[in-house]
Amino acid sequence: MFEFVVQQREGRARVAQFHTPRGVVTTPMFMPVGTQGTVKSISPQELSDIGSQMILGNTYHLMLRPGEDLVEAHGGLPGFTAYPGPFLTDSGGFQVMSLGHMRKITEEGVTFKSHLDGSPVHLTPERSIQVQEALGADVIMAFDECPPFPAERDYIQRSLERTIRWLERCLKVKSRSEQALFAIVQGGIHPDLRQQSLDLTLPFETPGFAIGGLAVGESKAEMFPAVSFTAERLPENKPRYLMGVGHPEDLIAGIALGVDMFDCVYPTRTGRFGYALTDDGRLNMNSSAPRRDMRPLDETCDCYACRHYTRAYLAHLLRAEEMLAPRMLSLHNLRYLHHLVERARSAIEQGQFTAWATAWGQRYFKGDLPGWYQTALATGAENTPSSHL
Amino acid sequence: MFEFVVQQREGRARVAQFHTPRGVVTTPMFMPVGTQGTVKSISPQELSDIGSQMILGNTYHLMLRPGEDLVEAHGGLPGFTAYPGPFLTDSGGFQVMSLGHMRKITEEGVTFKSHLDGSPVHLTPERSIQVQEALGADVIMAFDECPPFPAERDYIQRSLERTIRWLERCLKVKSRSEQALFAIVQGGIHPDLRQQSLDLTLPFETPGFAIGGLAVGESKAEMFPAVSFTAERLPENKPRYLMGVGHPEDLIAGIALGVDMFDCVYPTRTGRFGYALTDDGRLNMNSSAPRRDMRPLDETCDCYACRHYTRAYLAHLLRAEEMLAPRMLSLHNLRYLHHLVERARSAIEQGQFTAWATAWGQRYFKGDLPGWYQTALATGAENTPSSHL
Repeated sequence: MFEFVVQQREGRARVAQFHTPRGVVTTPMFMPVGTQGTVKSISPQELSDIGSQMILGNTYHLMLRPGEDLVEAHGGLPGFTAYPGPFLTDSGGFQVMSLGHMRKITEEGVTFKSHLDGSPVHLTPERSIQVQEALGADVIMAFDECPPFPAERDYIQRSLERTIRWLERCLKVKSRSEQALFAIVQGGIHPDLRQQSLDLTLPFETPGFAIGGLAVGESKAEMFPAVSFTAERLPENKPRYLMGVGHPEDLIAGIALGVDMFDCVYPTRTGRFGYALTDDGRLNMNSSAPRRDMRPLDETCDCYACRHYTRAYLAHLLRAEEMLAPRMLSLHNLRYLHHLVERARSAIEQGQFTAWATAWGQRYFKGDLPGWYQTALATGAENTPSSHL
Repeated sequence: MFEFVVQQREGRARVAQFHTPRGVVTTPMFMPVGTQGTVKSISPQELSDIGSQMILGNTYHLMLRPGEDLVEAHGGLPGFTAYPGPFLTDSGGFQVMSLGHMRKITEEGVTFKSHLDGSPVHLTPERSIQVQEALGADVIMAFDECPPFPAERDYIQRSLERTIRWLERCLKVKSRSEQALFAIVQGGIHPDLRQQSLDLTLPFETPGFAIGGLAVGESKAEMFPAVSFTAERLPENKPRYLMGVGHPEDLIAGIALGVDMFDCVYPTRTGRFGYALTDDGRLNMNSSAPRRDMRPLDETCDCYACRHYTRAYLAHLLRAEEMLAPRMLSLHNLRYLHHLVERARSAIEQGQFTAWATAWGQRYFKGDLPGWYQTALATGAENTPSSHL
């Protein structure tokens, strides 16, 4: 269980099979976010249809409402949400930082007021694991502290050390062998702090590792060197999960640098706001351009929206504030990211990843590849993992 | 084309096949309402899955936005909405009454301000037909005047006479043989005015007739005698359409009285408000009762929501204001009405309609059948159509 078998490499990029109790998933993969027990507006059948593999659930939201006991009574998230495949839950730590009011962090854990009704909530490593065991995901995350950006070096350092002590407490109370607990590497954008976090985290030999503390406000030119530094130093034979990322271009840069798993609310959120992801960049369906456009959102997409609807129809739905608009744009955007990652996997399998990613970027960025993107591709291509030299 | 073949009768209730250019539909049937070119939150695939046959589109809404020319450029409503089956469009008259501001009715037509932007709009019988031909439905409706309730007898009388003159103008400009135009019988709840309207309308021998001017505020005890009076006097060999109705109990009473077609926003609207239709009455999913209820909405329903979700899960989605909640409740409610009508058809085919409808009502009304419901069933059962005596 939780075996991670790399099948093909190109530079640092790799295609692998990750075995979980609810099925084998192929990485790299993008995980749709089902914060409150549903990927917003999308049914489980649709998730399967568009090639979703693993779905993310948020511990913070679900423990507050409906409460983890109700989810457990349904046999965990698969029974509750009717998505029969693998799940991953976060630890709740990040949401406490971003949503909790009046939070107070101590060595014991975090005390905060619920964003729903202001009632006091106490979250500790032990409580996070207890909730995550009730939610029943295949992959669960260590309860960590994710500093904001920017933060003082001293704070990041103290925080990454506390994250290790919290990791130890998580592992101590974890009781279910059918759940893999991933540790999270912190350290902000500072290589020396990342190294410290790696040195303290790797000895725990958890079945996978997450790159945390990024995509919290820093620029992409700051983020990707940190991704590169961390990913390069994680074990070759275990999955690497870049938390909270991202946009299409971020997935490709991350894959180049050896990342295997991604999650982000971006495709569904931007869909609800009326934007469609395509190889030519993000299409603003709220503008006047699509109103008489008889083409599908994306000629090459096989999602339900692209097979059935014109841009003109979807633009009409948006203007008319019809629920089918955010639903169809969310569905398309999720399918776009899944398909993008599928294309990346194919390219890796054919030894064409760098060429494909460069060509994709030329079109997506309209000929003007950002430096951070070029650097990520070049770095990934040059560094063949040492274990395979 | 537009042949209406009655296959089975029980009293006034009947099962028939109605032939349209986009397929044969079986009546009695309930038509989901797709006001703005979408049945709110539901995909065409889902409409087919739950047994929808004919979908209603609203001329008033579609002519204002996106404009009928765009719909026509898609090959009409089937191309625009991606629902490949038969459509029916209303004439726009009713929406002008209920949504238009500053409306002025003259012999020529109606002038009003758009509910979207206040711009002036002129709608006439000729314009209504022009728009409906562009929208391309299989069944189109005559442009009529639907008086509010209550209204003065004099006004209803003048209005029903004008409706006949407008019907003549509609038929004069109608140019497409692949569209059936239904005339609408008015007359409020007054038998003598209904008779006048019938006397003036029936000679036009349109391929179907609607019972209009009801479900506008009168009680059910006032409405159903008018339905009974009108339906009894409509031709046996043509479909009868009770416009804007209705609730589950209204469909059964209408079927008893010989009505073949129904439409209403009720199932989707009440679903968006958090209510689920069942044989035991309407379930309030906003209440605390379902929050820990592990049963499906309806044990006997085969819709996606009932096959996959507990009441507890759906109640959670509602509280969390997740879009999947209105989507799933709308889907269930539409399926409930389709299945209800399917059960009514089976009962008619087995000569058990009155018994079935009585048993259904006993459960639905918790043993307390309303007088209007009993009267409708009894009236329908006693009166075998004279053409079949």
